[in-house]
Amino acid sequence: MALAVSPLAPERFPEIPVIPGVRFAAGCTGMRYRNRDDLMLAELAPGTTIAGVFTQSQTASAPVLWCRAGAKRGRGQAFVVNAGNANTFTGKDGVSAVKTTAAATAKLLGCAAADVFVSSTGIIGQKLPVETVTAALPALKQGLAASAWEKAARAIMTTDTFPKGATATAKIGGVTVTIGGFAKGSGMIAPDMATMLAFVFTDAALSPKVLAELLRDGADRSFNSITVDSDTSTSDTLLLAATGKAGNKKIARAGDPALKDFRAKLDAVLLDLALQVVRDGEGAQKLITIRINGAASPKAARKIGLAVANSPLVKTAVAAADPNWGRIVAAVGKAGEKANRDRLKIGIGGVLIARNGGPVPGYDEAPVAQHMQGRDVVIEIDVGVGKGRATVWGCDLTHGYIDINGSYRS
Amino acid sequence: MALAVSPLAPERFPEIPVIPGVRFAAGCTGMRYRNRDDLMLAELAPGTTIAGVFTQSQTASAPVLWCRAGAKRGRGQAFVVNAGNANTFTGKDGVSAVKTTAAATAKLLGCAAADVFVSSTGIIGQKLPVETVTAALPALKQGLAASAWEKAARAIMTTDTFPKGATATAKIGGVTVTIGGFAKGSGMIAPDMATMLAFVFTDAALSPKVLAELLRDGADRSFNSITVDSDTSTSDTLLLAATGKAGNKKIARAGDPALKDFRAKLDAVLLDLALQVVRDGEGAQKLITIRINGAASPKAARKIGLAVANSPLVKTAVAAADPNWGRIVAAVGKAGEKANRDRLKIGIGGVLIARNGGPVPGYDEAPVAQHMQGRDVVIEIDVGVGKGRATVWGCDLTHGYIDINGSYRS
Repeated sequence: MALAVSPLAPERFPEIPVIPGVRFAAGCTGMRYRNRDDLMLAELAPGTTIAGVFTQSQTASAPVLWCRAGAKRGRGQAFVVNAGNANTFTGKDGVSAVKTTAAATAKLLGCAAADVFVSSTGIIGQKLPVETVTAALPALKQGLAASAWEKAARAIMTTDTFPKGATATAKIGGVTVTIGGFAKGSGMIAPDMATMLAFVFTDAALSPKVLAELLRDGADRSFNSITVDSDTSTSDTLLLAATGKAGNKKIARAGDPALKDFRAKLDAVLLDLALQVVRDGEGAQKLITIRINGAASPKAARKIGLAVANSPLVKTAVAAADPNWGRIVAAVGKAGEKANRDRLKIGIGGVLIARNGGPVPGYDEAPVAQHMQGRDVVIEIDVGVGKGRATVWGCDLTHGYIDINGSYRS
Repeated sequence: MALAVSPLAPERFPEIPVIPGVRFAAGCTGMRYRNRDDLMLAELAPGTTIAGVFTQSQTASAPVLWCRAGAKRGRGQAFVVNAGNANTFTGKDGVSAVKTTAAATAKLLGCAAADVFVSSTGIIGQKLPVETVTAALPALKQGLAASAWEKAARAIMTTDTFPKGATATAKIGGVTVTIGGFAKGSGMIAPDMATMLAFVFTDAALSPKVLAELLRDGADRSFNSITVDSDTSTSDTLLLAATGKAGNKKIARAGDPALKDFRAKLDAVLLDLALQVVRDGEGAQKLITIRINGAASPKAARKIGLAVANSPLVKTAVAAADPNWGRIVAAVGKAGEKANRDRLKIGIGGVLIARNGGPVPGYDEAPVAQHMQGRDVVIEIDVGVGKGRATVWGCDLTHGYIDINGSYRS
């Protein structure tokens, strides 16, 4: 099944600078896809610190459990990722496949198996043919290159229609550090305190504790604020690796003012990647940005925003460029968070549509309908009960989603 | 927009006996639909007791707030229902429209305005032209007839493709009582401790307190266990009226053994109506029954079942008759309730597919795929952590849903 590239895709994959201490390779195992890479190896210099956030699913995959343990240790020397088979709900075979992959990679690279982070994405419930992975690894080691960002990003795609990369530079105490990363994801996207597969790298020198805190905060405002279809995955994994090669001075706390610029740039890279995932949402024709104000708390604001973003009725209305704002009222009402029906305000595309419990008198629908014809639809909601704010992002629901998901597996 | 009748529709509207103390009429106000009835009046004998359950939405409609107050009083003499305009998020005008409707009906029937229950269903956020309602009422009063069940059921339809009725008889202390009712609903169906519009009548003599308890229990196992699209409505209303004309002896407690048969028959009528709503789910081609066992509690079981029933990926897989059970694993995992990945069991159409954390060795997909080609798809899940059980019902997600909801309003 060849999918057309999403109309919301960026023009091109970004130019990501080399990050000292990181090299990539990709290759084809043929386990599911033909004529494309489906295995990615990232080699990390000794001493690299690692942070990770993962799916909260009760049926998390074997690779997620393995990576969660690795992230607790806070150090690592390799990421190995295969696409096409999620190695999820595969029982003891699945656990053993992860261990075998980690051991084979460790032997090749001369590190401990515990330093190898293994991720898998694709079909759930099929046994992973691990020998095809281990057989492909030696050639990948030969091909490691610091500049192979796009090749690596392409190798982890499943129903994605374009590779997703992002980069930024930041200053830490006068030293310039670089951040670069890539992500995959298109369906089964409703990260729950976690994300789809995303891998971010920096040459900054940061302790595991500081790295973990920066990543958790950034993930909340990016990957944890997006949804394609409300279906949280079993495999969501976001890993951040810091090689320390930039040589900035040691920072003890995530709250240190010296990290202000780095934190902002890391957040920007995470958000860029997260939005590319939404822009590649299965069948998506429009990106929906939902800004919530006036909620009881930031958490309540995000929950209300996600209720609107996940509403099939709102999503189909956006697909049809139909300013059917009553469906937004209903979605706010069902979110399970406090809202004041008579103080609720709703705007679309900068036009205030409803307030004080009813439509704005004389409201002109024409400019709203025109805004909704575009690729970027902005919905603003004031819930009228407090000061909690959040922004979430989603996409429309079209025939494309049904075409893709009625035929992905068979 | 004329929609084809759902392939899951029952063959015909049932024969519902006359219930002493209840008469119906319907007429056309023309406020939204042409050439069909859109206003329903049910007249109830003096002394009729009433129970109701309603949407938990924070943006509940003016009619819901009015009916909630009425149900607290526990008595009533009329239901007035219009279709095409939900009178929701209509501010003071909306509240005033409800009061005007109740007052006009009360004057016609010679009762108090507080005894008139008003419901509205249709577009959210448009002012209700209440004068077209009050103008139509006198003719409705003239046409009241005890046998007009189907006419009444048809008058409250919106995107419904068939009218939904159900009936049963039960014995209370040797006296035969009759139960009859009708419902509407097709989209924006994810009742939250409530339901879409449904009206059920009986000639049993039951106190408001007993009636309320019976209805709450029955709603939990029927309307609160169905979903079409996860979008809880602002207008969900289920009213049960008991005229007392059957002359059974007074019953003081809902737990009285004399009510055992009545309770079972009431539950059956409620479930029948609820399933007809799912069978008329927008775009539905298949009814999905999900039986959950082994959850931490019955409530946890229902939540897990609804997570599966609401998963767009499960729904599209069912539409495509694709036994993609990995999506069921993912939906169980995201439900936010305890599940044991390594004790989880999944079966479809009576075939055990997965257990002990992986697929059943040698599992044959062919009979499962064949089962999924049919109109009724049964999914059985054992969560592996406790004794909580529940059954929930949903439908598949097809192109029809997107066609309907991209064009309903404009």
